[in-house]
Amino acid sequence: MKNLFDVIKLDSDGLIAAIIQHSETGQVLMLGYMNEESLQITLDEKIACFWSRSRQELWRKGETSGNTLKVEEVRCDCDQDALVLQCVPAGPTCHTNETSCFYRTVDAKADLALAGDGVAPE
Amino acid sequence: MKNLFDVIKLDSDGLIAAIIQHSETGQVLMLGYMNEESLQITLDEKIACFWSRSRQELWRKGETSGNTLKVEEVRCDCDQDALVLQCVPAGPTCHTNETSCFYRTVDAKADLALAGDGVAPE
Repeated sequence: MKNLFDVIKLDSDGLIAAIIQHSETGQVLMLGYMNEESLQITLDEKIACFWSRSRQELWRKGETSGNTLKVEEVRCDCDQDALVLQCVPAGPTCHTNETSCFYRTVDAKADLALAGDGVAPE
Repeated sequence: MKNLFDVIKLDSDGLIAAIIQHSETGQVLMLGYMNEESLQITLDEKIACFWSRSRQELWRKGETSGNTLKVEEVRCDCDQDALVLQCVPAGPTCHTNETSCFYRTVDAKADLALAGDGVAPE
């Protein structure tokens, strides 16, 4: 049995990409990054914790907004440099109050538009 | 109307993360990276093209294996540093012949195990 921490491939900043997927709807909610400490916290507490690249600090998502991500399952990819977390969100995941950060479509000309499933702020 | 190329936030290697999701099943298949050229090719041809970080070259996925990813929809996140592509895969996405690269679970002790939906090589 391999342990993730023995084989994990972190990037030059010591981070691994973590895709957050809604465990019930399958919607991809956000892409975050974890260092080993935030990954360990996530595995221990079953609440998603990231490394904030902009603030350069641990980011316990939802600590202020209440919009936590309860972790149901963690998966690892074939070369151990990406994770998928199946989560139950306590509220909108995006800071814009959209359900998902991926609320805009990109057309063939690369123009951005609001997707049809965009929601009103809660 | 904003154009993605005017607002895209590329990392220090000039890349953006691209999450590939099966457009029918919702399964997350892989995480790849695109530079502007491979993103433009993807938007033009509707077949996913990446930048291979290991080989440092354009990677037209499926060019040799035939396991292309037909792109149905592209979405962009709130800060324009990640994409989700809804795709129809022509075959297994992972080089291991698994449907998805995320075929292993990570438990609370960070031990890796094959997920129940792992498939036999085709």
